[in-house]
This record gives sequence, structure tokens and C-alpha cells, in this order.
Amino acid sequence: MKLYDYYRSSASYRVRIALNLKGLEYAQQPVSLLDNEQNSTTYTALNPSGLVPGFIPDPAAGSENDGELLSQSLAIIEYLDERYPEPPLLPSEPWQKAKCREIAFAIACDIHPLNNLRVLKYLTGPLAIDESEKMAWYHHWLKQGLQSLEVMVSRHSHPFCCGDEPSLADICLIPQLYNAKRFGFDLSHYPRLLDIEARCQALPAFIAAHPDNQQP
Amino acid sequence: MKLYDYYRSSASYRVRIALNLKGLEYAQQPVSLLDNEQNSTTYTALNPSGLVPGFIPDPAAGSENDGELLSQSLAIIEYLDERYPEPPLLPSEPWQKAKCREIAFAIACDIHPLNNLRVLKYLTGPLAIDESEKMAWYHHWLKQGLQSLEVMVSRHSHPFCCGDEPSLADICLIPQLYNAKRFGFDLSHYPRLLDIEARCQALPAFIAAHPDNQQP
Repeated sequence: MKLYDYYRSSASYRVRIALNLKGLEYAQQPVSLLDNEQNSTTYTALNPSGLVPGFIPDPAAGSENDGELLSQSLAIIEYLDERYPEPPLLPSEPWQKAKCREIAFAIACDIHPLNNLRVLKYLTGPLAIDESEKMAWYHHWLKQGLQSLEVMVSRHSHPFCCGDEPSLADICLIPQLYNAKRFGFDLSHYPRLLDIEARCQALPAFIAAHPDNQQP
Repeated sequence: MKLYDYYRSSASYRVRIALNLKGLEYAQQPVSLLDNEQNSTTYTALNPSGLVPGFIPDPAAGSENDGELLSQSLAIIEYLDERYPEPPLLPSEPWQKAKCREIAFAIACDIHPLNNLRVLKYLTGPLAIDESEKMAWYHHWLKQGLQSLEVMVSRHSHPFCCGDEPSLADICLIPQLYNAKRFGFDLSHYPRLLDIEARCQALPAFIAAHPDNQQP
């Protein structure tokens, strides 16, 4: 299987963690967002959205995809969880599963889309906002999102976001916190999130997926 | 079961379609985004994210939720699909299911978060951009997203986004196209999407969920 990714992309980072938690071997194909490689005709022929990550499953696994690429990190992770069920990345009980997806989507739909590279480039490019306004924008959405996440995970005392093992929620949380630190955001108001982060960052699957441990 | 929603919210509209497709009865509790009711202490006590929709399932259905609210439209819809399997809102085959989620997430993570009310308010408020810049922003992200969606759904000739029946992908597409029209976006370049939209808009589940058919 093959992963088109960029080392600092939060969405790519999520998929790397999931692949590692499943113990799956995969080939990495870097797509440099800084060099605009995601908009090359080669890549957009495979992935019309021109976004990373992109995933091509292992044909030997009996997949039905005909060499087709799958985009959207959460669609990729849900697919991996269905095809390779162990260890599970979602609780099995329906309500707990829904609460776990709630956290993942709160990050993937309400924080990350507003703060990724293409959006920040539009703000400083066509909208010509200055650096301090850009940082205020970044911090505004992050603060709104993390505040409610801190409340959600403080309703229980599990070691991870949704129980005793890392799940889809932790897979989304860790890249978002990495991103927050890169942008100088003070995380000290979110002790539960930091506690969960520390536990994740001690696990080999998370360590191997970290941007610092990829080829830039 | 109870749905906290706002008639024009795309994410609320998605959940209404899903509930109707499943043939489920539900009580609606309007939360006016224009009146900022989503940030009231009553609502944020239930839903710390302060976003709509919010969903409380039917205790009689044997749910395990203890009166707790579930936020995030896609988490709600996946939950409904698991608890009330007929008619299914996702294909059963894993790769087709993944491709269906890919379309749903391309809308829910890459288009809608950039163009919803709270973001447009930040642009015209703190960032003080003018009306034409706001419309250019709105159209920019919509165009990028719809172009790749048109390519994706043109790879087959199914009547709906992912086959012969409406699915999670159509549930996300229709509110996004409704929103696009409200903002004067020219959809004529997306004939496949318009074709799918016409087919959906003829179905009672979609008609009953339409913003025009809700109490404002």
C-alpha cells in the first residue's frame, strides 16, 4: 500500500499513526505542499482534490479498488479499521463509537480546515492580512475548538480520549496539538488534553508517525 | 429523539435528511444562530462546542447515552445508520463505503467549514474584509471543492453520488448546493452534481428536510 503524504500535514500525520497502530507496512510518496506538488497534473490525475493524504491500498489484500486512490484522512482511517480490524480504532458499542467520532470530527471539521496551509496562504495572499492578524485567526479557532474538547474529555478519566486504548479521536488530537505548538499556542489551559498527549507520544506508533521522523 | 437545529444550517439540514430517510420521528428544538442562541449557557451546558446540530437519541431505543447530547452531524448520521440500519446510508462493500465517505468528508471538511456563518462573521468582523472579498472567499473554496466532486461523480453514471440510492454523500451534497445558490454561485459547470441534486430534491425525505419547510 502507498501513502502520498507531506510530513507536516496534520491529515497525513493522522493516517501515518493509524497505519502504525495497525502494524501495516506502507510506501511513502512525499508530496511537497511548499513546492505546490499537490497541484501537479500527475497528482491531480490520481487525486482530483489536490490535497494530501492520498492512499492506494494493497492489491494483494483483495481490495476492489483497481489502483484507484482514496483521499480524505478520515475515510482512509475508517477503511483501514474495517479491513484490518485489530487493534480497533473505534469503540464497538454504538453510542461510545459515536462519541469517539464526535471528537474526531470536532477536530477534523471545526479546527483543522480553518488553520491549514492553503487557508493561511489565502488570508495573507488575496486578503492581505498581516502576520499578527493571521496568528489571531489561527489562535481563535484553535481556542474555541480545544476548549470544548477539554470539557468533553474531562467528563471521564480514561487514559485516552475514548477509553483505555488510543482511538480515532487520539489520532486526530495529536497532530492538532503538534500544529498548535508550531504556531506558539499556549496549551497550559488544557491539562486533560496534554495528559492524553503525553501518553500517546510515548507509544511507538505515534513516535514513528511524528513529522520530525519523516523525510521532509 | 430530539434534534437541536437551525433551519439554514447545512449540518442540521444533513441530519434532517438522514432522519427522514430512516423514517424516524423526532422533535425539533430550534437554536437561532442569528440570535446567538448556540452560545447560551443552557445550550453550551448540553453541547460544549456551541454548534448545531445537537442530537439526543430516543431512550426507549435502548441507548446507553444517559440523556447526553451528541454533536457533529456526521457522527450523528453514522450513529443513526448503525442503530437503524434500513435503508443503509453507506454501501456495504468496504472500498465503496470508503469512496462514499470520501465525498462526504470532501464537503464536510474542505468546503463547509470555510463558508459557514461563524467564519464569514469573523472575516467581516475582526478582519474587516468587505462584501466583495467575502463573496470571493466563499466562491473560491466552493469552486475548488465542487470541481473535484464533479470529477469524482463523473467517473460513474449512477443516479446518486454512490449508487442507486441516496447515501451519506448525497446527504452532504444537497445542503452544500443549497448554500451555494443562496450565495449566488453559478452551478452550471457541474452538470453531474445538478443531475444528482434534481433526483434528490424529488424525494420526500429531502423535501421535508429543506430549510424552506422548517420553522425559522
